[in-house]
Amino acid sequence: MTSPRPASPHPAGQHTVRRHNSALVLAAIADTPGISRASIAGRTGLTKATVSSLVERMLAAGLVTDSGPARREGPGRRGAALSLSETGPHGLGVEIGVDYLATCLVDLTGRMRSRLVRETDNRTEPTGRVLARTARAVRDALQEAEALGVRIGGIGVALPGLVESGSGVLRVAPNLGWRDVDVPGELRARLDLPALSILPGNEANFAALAELWAGGHDGLRDYVHVSGEVGIGAGIVVAGELFEGVRGFGGEIGHFSVDADGPACSCGSRGCLERLAGQESVLRRAGVPADGRPSEQLGELVRKLEHDDAAALAATASAGRWLGTALSDVVNLLDVPAVVLGGAYARLHPWLAGALVAELETRVMSAGFAPIRVVRSALGTEAAVRGAAGSAVRAIVADPESFVETG
Amino acid sequence: MTSPRPASPHPAGQHTVRRHNSALVLAAIADTPGISRASIAGRTGLTKATVSSLVERMLAAGLVTDSGPARREGPGRRGAALSLSETGPHGLGVEIGVDYLATCLVDLTGRMRSRLVRETDNRTEPTGRVLARTARAVRDALQEAEALGVRIGGIGVALPGLVESGSGVLRVAPNLGWRDVDVPGELRARLDLPALSILPGNEANFAALAELWAGGHDGLRDYVHVSGEVGIGAGIVVAGELFEGVRGFGGEIGHFSVDADGPACSCGSRGCLERLAGQESVLRRAGVPADGRPSEQLGELVRKLEHDDAAALAATASAGRWLGTALSDVVNLLDVPAVVLGGAYARLHPWLAGALVAELETRVMSAGFAPIRVVRSALGTEAAVRGAAGSAVRAIVADPESFVETG
Repeated sequence: MTSPRPASPHPAGQHTVRRHNSALVLAAIADTPGISRASIAGRTGLTKATVSSLVERMLAAGLVTDSGPARREGPGRRGAALSLSETGPHGLGVEIGVDYLATCLVDLTGRMRSRLVRETDNRTEPTGRVLARTARAVRDALQEAEALGVRIGGIGVALPGLVESGSGVLRVAPNLGWRDVDVPGELRARLDLPALSILPGNEANFAALAELWAGGHDGLRDYVHVSGEVGIGAGIVVAGELFEGVRGFGGEIGHFSVDADGPACSCGSRGCLERLAGQESVLRRAGVPADGRPSEQLGELVRKLEHDDAAALAATASAGRWLGTALSDVVNLLDVPAVVLGGAYARLHPWLAGALVAELETRVMSAGFAPIRVVRSALGTEAAVRGAAGSAVRAIVADPESFVETG
Repeated sequence: MTSPRPASPHPAGQHTVRRHNSALVLAAIADTPGISRASIAGRTGLTKATVSSLVERMLAAGLVTDSGPARREGPGRRGAALSLSETGPHGLGVEIGVDYLATCLVDLTGRMRSRLVRETDNRTEPTGRVLARTARAVRDALQEAEALGVRIGGIGVALPGLVESGSGVLRVAPNLGWRDVDVPGELRARLDLPALSILPGNEANFAALAELWAGGHDGLRDYVHVSGEVGIGAGIVVAGELFEGVRGFGGEIGHFSVDADGPACSCGSRGCLERLAGQESVLRRAGVPADGRPSEQLGELVRKLEHDDAAALAATASAGRWLGTALSDVVNLLDVPAVVLGGAYARLHPWLAGALVAELETRVMSAGFAPIRVVRSALGTEAAVRGAAGSAVRAIVADPESFVETG
């Protein structure tokens, strides 16, 4: 992902210090909702006067709310309770999926305020039409924010392909057939968003971040999150940080060569994991008719699985084996102790996990003495768009002064 | 790899400050051989008096030499020239290979002073005998240091398996058939090394670090280093730092499943890269007799390749294809822009690289717009033991005060 917002053009000095201190103060508030000014001072080492002055700026900009007396923190100590504002700037997430468009709004704490998914086959439409439809979806979400009475602080765009971290350009999205599309630029050209930052990124990376921020699975901080829809993507989180590769092109587990002589793939290679364990392959082998809408097809597959349909069970277990083979490579390479199954795989978990775990146990060198957790994402298919929106608000929390100045 | 040396037991305060400042000063000397005390003060922000006092301690401990007037750095400025001492503490590297034992000595700058390789099949011997032989090799290297008139500052041990970063225990080495061996502890029990730190690590990780420190290929700082001997290991370097996984078990590319239904592997899995592109597989397919010593067999393979022997060419190209398939997965996952071929692969590079590059170009999603460099390590089979020795001296340079105090 590209950096969310260019550094402010002011010279270093007093301004840089304030910027740094503002971020410290807001991080303390984000970490401990209901904290007092005195506690922030104690935690950050800043003077109470500095904390108060910075808090005033953030109250005025609507980033923070002051909800009366703080929880008691010791004998005789009381103070106003500060929290991230639920009515402060929201993050707008938009996801161009292969077969859907999704938008959502999250508040500064990352809580989802509204979400809209439209199923549409973005593969069969010209790029310009998909972008126009995406711009429309963003405009609708902006209106939704207006209806909720909140302003938008930034936009995150989740894309099913390789997004260059420097330029933000989508270099290739095989399942859309897109190459070199500057999605933020195209959206700006179609919308009136002069001051709003637009942060593009790979959908699997955003999904992995959403999982991190949701804090599930006992606060897991080292894992590979693998999400399966038409494509299969992975997001790698190590020590609570996303690892997206040197230029942002990492995590492309969908194009792991699991069967070197296997079927041709849209990426130009052969035997890619996507061809053997992607949603479309599973649906086809399970005998689910291809004419329904994607979510209906997945629902039909789940119904078959619940009724022990032999073809559905075999197709899902086969996907689990191939996925387990690829994930074994990931764990052998990166030594991450957990796998989070997201997207469609979260729904298929009960029928997929057994075969997947068996492959990990056979193929991972350290499995005998360092067991690998395989868990199911609670976020499901909304993870990517939620992560995109969350990234937009995280950028504000990480650098509130830039928001205060331009806001 | 485990941390090289436990923190000094002294309380924080003045001592902690000196420890920190010593490291700053020595880093400046290591970065800029011939630097003056005044330049160190300018660069570190320490006073000249502090720099002089710290330098005196390091001169006394033999870490630094003062070789008269420094190179001119500006009008009228002159000062003594400080460098890392070539006769200061040396690092002793020892590598337990599958079919050899190697030791080496490097000085504080990482320059190799001596190296000894003994070919021996460590697979057929009981663990205790291999460890006894390793202890003997370390003793010989200590005597070699004595003959050179230098002392040893630490020992690095390169191992062909998974070394747990916390405990330093070798959890598994499939090609040796070893499990849960505390190699440093076993060496201590056989040698009289009370004060010497012993730093165990995976051989492929040490090899990747040696490559980094050698600074070749225009100072490459993001790459996967893949070394092939009997086993195949990878070391991942990102932004000039080794990435070894959460518990130190990363880089096990040799057990990537490149042919899911392929031949059984000593790790318990099937179709691992090692079985299809490891040195023994290539030698066998090339028709090199299995009765010679390993280095003779590799030499025989190279002779056959130089004479365009069809079986040798086909075997090496096949290894290149499988290696390229596995490395495509690595690049798709981590987005590293370069591959360094080390160990036996460095020697086979001319006959291996073509097939390997062809796979990368087909299978890596970003290959079309972000080409991948494939380069040959200049260090060859000595990389791992050199990296082990280098890690021991790097630990001293990173924390000179601990050495000064115990030295």
